[in-house]
Amino acid sequence: MVTKRNMDAFTIHTDLLFDPKKKAFSNNTSIVVSRKSGLIANVYQRKDALPKTIEDPDIDLRGLCVLPGLVDAHTHILLHAYTEASSTAQMRDESLVERIIRATNHCRAALLAGFTTYRDLGTEGASDADVHIRNAVNRGLIPGPRIYCVSEALASSGGYEIRHENAIGGSQVPRISDPCDGVIGVRAAVRRRLGAGADLIKFYADYRKRSLRFPGNSWPGCPEVMFPPPQEGLQGERNPNLLLFDQEEMDAIVAEAKTARAPVAAHASTAEAVTMAAKAGVTTVEHGFLSMEGSEAMQTMREKGTIFVPTLAVIELFVSKAAMKDAMAQVKNAFDSGVKLACGGDTGAFAHGKNARELELFLEAGIPLEEVLYCATVRGWEACGGEWCGRNFGWIEEGVAADLVGLGADVRKDTGALRKVEWVMKDGRVWKSGGQAVGMA
Amino acid sequence: MVTKRNMDAFTIHTDLLFDPKKKAFSNNTSIVVSRKSGLIANVYQRKDALPKTIEDPDIDLRGLCVLPGLVDAHTHILLHAYTEASSTAQMRDESLVERIIRATNHCRAALLAGFTTYRDLGTEGASDADVHIRNAVNRGLIPGPRIYCVSEALASSGGYEIRHENAIGGSQVPRISDPCDGVIGVRAAVRRRLGAGADLIKFYADYRKRSLRFPGNSWPGCPEVMFPPPQEGLQGERNPNLLLFDQEEMDAIVAEAKTARAPVAAHASTAEAVTMAAKAGVTTVEHGFLSMEGSEAMQTMREKGTIFVPTLAVIELFVSKAAMKDAMAQVKNAFDSGVKLACGGDTGAFAHGKNARELELFLEAGIPLEEVLYCATVRGWEACGGEWCGRNFGWIEEGVAADLVGLGADVRKDTGALRKVEWVMKDGRVWKSGGQAVGMA
Amino acid sequence: MVTKRNMDAFTIHTDLLFDPKKKAFSNNTSIVVSRKSGLIANVYQRKDALPKTIEDPDIDLRGLCVLPGLVDAHTHILLHAYTEASSTAQMRDESLVERIIRATNHCRAALLAGFTTYRDLGTEGASDADVHIRNAVNRGLIPGPRIYCVSEALASSGGYEIRHENAIGGSQVPRISDPCDGVIGVRAAVRRRLGAGADLIKFYADYRKRSLRFPGNSWPGCPEVMFPPPQEGLQGERNPNLLLFDQEEMDAIVAEAKTARAPVAAHASTAEAVTMAAKAGVTTVEHGFLSMEGSEAMQTMREKGTIFVPTLAVIELFVSKAAMKDAMAQVKNAFDSGVKLACGGDTGAFAHGKNARELELFLEAGIPLEEVLYCATVRGWEACGGEWCGRNFGWIEEGVAADLVGLGADVRKDTGALRKVEWVMKDGRVWKSGGQAVGMA
Amino acid sequence: MVTKRNMDAFTIHTDLLFDPKKKAFSNNTSIVVSRKSGLIANVYQRKDALPKTIEDPDIDLRGLCVLPGLVDAHTHILLHAYTEASSTAQMRDESLVERIIRATNHCRAALLAGFTTYRDLGTEGASDADVHIRNAVNRGLIPGPRIYCVSEALASSGGYEIRHENAIGGSQVPRISDPCDGVIGVRAAVRRRLGAGADLIKFYADYRKRSLRFPGNSWPGCPEVMFPPPQEGLQGERNPNLLLFDQEEMDAIVAEAKTARAPVAAHASTAEAVTMAAKAGVTTVEHGFLSMEGSEAMQTMREKGTIFVPTLAVIELFVSKAAMKDAMAQVKNAFDSGVKLACGGDTGAFAHGKNARELELFLEAGIPLEEVLYCATVRGWEACGGEWCGRNFGWIEEGVAADLVGLGADVRKDTGALRKVEWVMKDGRVWKSGGQAVGMA
Repeated sequence: MVTKRNMDAFTIHTDLLFDPKKKAFSNNTSIVVSRKSGLIANVYQRKDALPKTIEDPDIDLRGLCVLPGLVDAHTHILLHAYTEASSTAQMRDESLVERIIRATNHCRAALLAGFTTYRDLGTEGASDADVHIRNAVNRGLIPGPRIYCVSEALASSGGYEIRHENAIGGSQVPRISDPCDGVIGVRAAVRRRLGAGADLIKFYADYRKRSLRFPGNSWPGCPEVMFPPPQEGLQGERNPNLLLFDQEEMDAIVAEAKTARAPVAAHASTAEAVTMAAKAGVTTVEHGFLSMEGSEAMQTMREKGTIFVPTLAVIELFVSKAAMKDAMAQVKNAFDSGVKLACGGDTGAFAHGKNARELELFLEAGIPLEEVLYCATVRGWEACGGEWCGRNFGWIEEGVAADLVGLGADVRKDTGALRKVEWVMKDGRVWKSGGQAVGMA
Repeated sequence: MVTKRNMDAFTIHTDLLFDPKKKAFSNNTSIVVSRKSGLIANVYQRKDALPKTIEDPDIDLRGLCVLPGLVDAHTHILLHAYTEASSTAQMRDESLVERIIRATNHCRAALLAGFTTYRDLGTEGASDADVHIRNAVNRGLIPGPRIYCVSEALASSGGYEIRHENAIGGSQVPRISDPCDGVIGVRAAVRRRLGAGADLIKFYADYRKRSLRFPGNSWPGCPEVMFPPPQEGLQGERNPNLLLFDQEEMDAIVAEAKTARAPVAAHASTAEAVTMAAKAGVTTVEHGFLSMEGSEAMQTMREKGTIFVPTLAVIELFVSKAAMKDAMAQVKNAFDSGVKLACGGDTGAFAHGKNARELELFLEAGIPLEEVLYCATVRGWEACGGEWCGRNFGWIEEGVAADLVGLGADVRKDTGALRKVEWVMKDGRVWKSGGQAVGMA
Repeated sequence: MVTKRNMDAFTIHTDLLFDPKKKAFSNNTSIVVSRKSGLIANVYQRKDALPKTIEDPDIDLRGLCVLPGLVDAHTHILLHAYTEASSTAQMRDESLVERIIRATNHCRAALLAGFTTYRDLGTEGASDADVHIRNAVNRGLIPGPRIYCVSEALASSGGYEIRHENAIGGSQVPRISDPCDGVIGVRAAVRRRLGAGADLIKFYADYRKRSLRFPGNSWPGCPEVMFPPPQEGLQGERNPNLLLFDQEEMDAIVAEAKTARAPVAAHASTAEAVTMAAKAGVTTVEHGFLSMEGSEAMQTMREKGTIFVPTLAVIELFVSKAAMKDAMAQVKNAFDSGVKLACGGDTGAFAHGKNARELELFLEAGIPLEEVLYCATVRGWEACGGEWCGRNFGWIEEGVAADLVGLGADVRKDTGALRKVEWVMKDGRVWKSGGQAVGMA
Repeated sequence: MVTKRNMDAFTIHTDLLFDPKKKAFSNNTSIVVSRKSGLIANVYQRKDALPKTIEDPDIDLRGLCVLPGLVDAHTHILLHAYTEASSTAQMRDESLVERIIRATNHCRAALLAGFTTYRDLGTEGASDADVHIRNAVNRGLIPGPRIYCVSEALASSGGYEIRHENAIGGSQVPRISDPCDGVIGVRAAVRRRLGAGADLIKFYADYRKRSLRFPGNSWPGCPEVMFPPPQEGLQGERNPNLLLFDQEEMDAIVAEAKTARAPVAAHASTAEAVTMAAKAGVTTVEHGFLSMEGSEAMQTMREKGTIFVPTLAVIELFVSKAAMKDAMAQVKNAFDSGVKLACGGDTGAFAHGKNARELELFLEAGIPLEEVLYCATVRGWEACGGEWCGRNFGWIEEGVAADLVGLGADVRKDTGALRKVEWVMKDGRVWKSGGQAVGMA
């Protein structure tokens, strides 16, 4: 083969490969990869049969179901599962040292699960540590997904904070957002975040900000408040989802970010916040799990080309089965209405490595497999900023990053296949082979 | 009885009961209460005579004049009577520890006086201690009224402060408001307060802010200023009531609060401030004791549905008999003009437990008894936010909190009856019986 | 006499009395004074001859030229003559203790010179010490003029500061203004000042703010900058008078102050700043010594009723004789054009007690004596706020403060008479008699 | 000679003199200089031959090519060559003491290279040290060019900072700009700078602010980020040049500066930023090296009379030969289009004393010699503020500073002549003679 002569290049041979751009599986495709650039150098359909044994450095992926590396469009590399420790405990009590050490584990877990890109939406109290975790991965200090991060999310005053009851007593807790108000204030905050190294901007369009009004029993021994207003999961009158910014502020956040070529992610639970964020021109709306019926939310997202990241995987941790069913129906409805979707689990709230849960829920919601894989690859790249990413990834084409995942089963026949990751490559480097980590010692 | 079988429920039998929603007294009414929810489960007219003795757990209130638990719409749980110590001394000199301990006494006193709900309008230098007193009551740590509170009131720069003369000398005093200016500034302040756990927002539309110009003899041994301009009680040229915010700022406070479903209380003494606050759409105007004649104040409150809380009980502590007569005439005039009224004494400036003084003054002003009781119950609930309260209280109906007060005399015949509280229930739990505290040991 | 029976009242008999309201001298006028209120209780023309000897407590001022107590409309009670120490040295180097002690001397000196009211326009680095000096006088702790003060003047960022060259080296100096910018910023500053106890608001419409560009030889041993641009006195290109605020900011300062019933004084040297300040509606323009020819300044002051306080006495310390002549011609022109004038020397820059210098310069400028005395009394009262002062003073009428000065010569014949102060009364109390201090031991 | 009698005056005789105002060389011109004012007192054409020897104090410059002292319109007196230490290292690591000491060397080097005026555009982390270096020169403490400086440049939040990666770890670094946002914020910043003693205002219209996104290997041992987006010199996707302010903010900066008679320099790399800055009315645009083709940039500068300072000398340190060729072609195009140009090398990034490099590059770009000399003299004066400078310099006329340079070769024949500086006078004082420093011991 011609490419053999090029010491920089090697070839990967597949017999079942999914290309999201074509939304189709192909057989007998080979992919030439440049070691130096980490990019796909060529893609071709094999006409002749391959020998039984492929010689090093070429790679034989026959028998595996090969996809581009997956993109989790909503993660928190600095969080671990809330079933292990509440988010409050993690943000307030865990040492920053432990949190960063855990993040290195999360990076490995993500990669081994076939997720080669993370869109990481907030350090949750760890300042701009995400920026430097991203850089450590990029510098080759640790294995991990390609990270796009926000440093601190923006929220208005009092909007997104650790709700501690002992401020008078002298307790201090880290801030979990960069607080800002007014058009000038939010613009300055966007400027601060980008200067601090963020890839994209996240803001809270709404949040449950009134939890100190009827506080939960926030620590062991804490008595319950009697007769609180009803709350079911993430909604209700005890701590309703409330707007944190007005339209003018949201518009200013987006305008300022776009001036600096940075995409914007908006946390928005209510239809009103979704609509306002979409009108402002955000790149993505996160969550949006409350009913959009009777609102302009869905139509506005479609018209503005907003990507909807419904984070079903985290929703199911908090809400009833009935509410979950509604949320999934709404995602299906969004798909049917032509709203763009990306897969992001809010991973970190549950274990890194279980990122595939979001894809499984998309499938359960009734979205066709090829479309789900598109949402977890190309759409993820778009959610990260598309051309502003500085690198193409998520599909199979010359000039695109050589991110590839080999599954041990045919995902068309076995949805469980998404958890059977046998082989992983990122930027042309193999990190898992034969179901075992490679080069991570 | 059917309800007997339900271990959670019990029945209260009355032979003289006032329902504010009907503005009428009824005989032979029984009320079924759920222990678990603290709510009224049923209300029925008895057709048959009751046995002489009612068996436990049912309750026999025959012989008492029964009202819904009363709402004091303007209190300061962290203040005690100014006749004991001036507000300055309390805010500047009393230890926070003492103030909080006193507040626990105030909670008991209020409840034993039949006031089951407090609308608490400012900690007066104790930061957001009110939020945590409210929560301690709600958690069952101490007996006390259901509290709706503001944490710190908003005032513009230099507007509401402890006026100390020794700043150059190094004295520092706690702040007694959250200072804010401009549309962005006041919106951020509202956001801060709600994040801190406030139920509602209070702001000073006007205040006597210039007391350092002709200072009083503020401590023992302090010589009097000679020839100061005239001041009578809370008004006059020595320290006039002056606007603290402009219309745009007041509008912004209200708009921001309503976005978060929080009611707004405006301290306003002058007709101008009352008018501006009412135009801004506040829920209530507090005080408003200066003459509104010749102004739009009264009409604006009526048109906007503003609730007027005239705090006559505190006014009478400060003004001459003539001025008090005027203030009471103005309240009567407001009532006759169709302005909504609520009873709030500014309790704390005088002793908690003497809350009924405000109702007595309403009656003295010529407002009919049934209307006064309405102002001290249903209207109080509206002043706390109505549906935004998270709980119904103040009338007799299924689904409403089981807050009930039994008076030892018929209030229709004996206005002193409001001070003869024999029996008190809040959220279905009895706190006073036979004129004695129950379960408060 | 009727008034004799009233132990509170006594009578002052004059045979040459000037009443500024009538702009006329009268003979045989007697003035009844109330000790308790310090006010004139009655004024009457004597028809009968007086006995040769007036008995105590009545007072015999026959033989003196009696005027109302004088008002110096521009003073600095916390400064002493620049010929003794530069303003920089006073603000930066003198102990606050010394400055306050000196101020007590200044208070006595002013009173003994017949100046019973001071309009004090800035503490120049002593925070709000003026507020408390005023209060100490009002409380009777020290003798002194009735003071109306501003606490700190407002200036925009970098506008009015001690220009020190060693900030990098760690030197810190007190601030000499309350810095503020933008409409919201200046409104908040006005609010701060009034809360701090100011009677009126002062702001710098312009100033020579660029003195660090071509610094003077600011300390002994400091070498001169070579070839600086020309500067003559208070003007020139080396450090030009430059606008500190725009029109919108000036408008906001005045609007906010007037809402709180506080007059506003604007430091303004250039015609442009004078015009802008007058348009904004300030009560007074201070200095205005640069040529207004060809500008709208004079006309705007006349139309808006602005009081012009030209501070000729301080100007003459800094400018050439030619420039002084121009400044005086401009003041005369202002008078002829119908612009209101008040006498304020910027006293403190030269010695307290020599306040009469400003009146002498008004006379030298060609303004008639009666008008000059009007500028130094009634107009001074207006400059202090008029009705907002809380007390009437500066003319001879029932209900006006009993402030009176007896000169040892007829001011109509001897302009030096203004320095021959034999007798001084303020608020009905005698402080000087027979040319000697009384009751100041 | 007449002037001989005047002890203050002396005469300089030249036989080859360039006057930028005439854009022509003349022979036999003599210049009378006043020692006291440092100004040219007279200029005349000699009709008679001079004696062979000129007697002291007159000066014989026959045989030299004499120009007015040169103006470097873009310098950093507190930086030394980046080839010696990176700008980050200088700003973060070098002691302020060392930096100031180095600056004294830079002052001498500039003067000896014939550059008698420096337009110094930012201390780069040394606060307002430039103000005091300027003053030290002006006070005669050290020899050096006449400096016009900005103290700190303005940038929006996060716009121009030392990008350090260890903020969480506790590292703190000096600020290198005065950060400001919004119309009020930028106006206040301009006011601060002028109060601090700046001669002119510099702001960053754009900058490469996202260097923490794909950080360089910023210290020895720092691993490279893998697969970063492309960057060539000062442009590219890895760290693109991005707008730091919007049009409204730029307009406000310029308006505020001009109110105080201060010129404004805008750092602008992209055509968009150049256009916006020019529209705002800045005095000069710095750099502008990215292609303006297809934009309004060039036309806007011409129409607004903006001076373009292309800083070619620093550009060549960072970009490829091809990009340099483009930049030079663009400068030539600007010249041909009638855009005003000034010579400023961004000196300090390379060695002070090598300032002539910018003129050489102008010449290489194809701009005629006389025009280049105009750009390095008269236009430099205009860039410093023209009439606002407080002194005329840069041409040969009565009343203009006696700044003169004598070259050892005819610059018309030998472009290298600009580096052959034999003789230097500034403000009438000789600092170099016979190629040797004079009076600098």
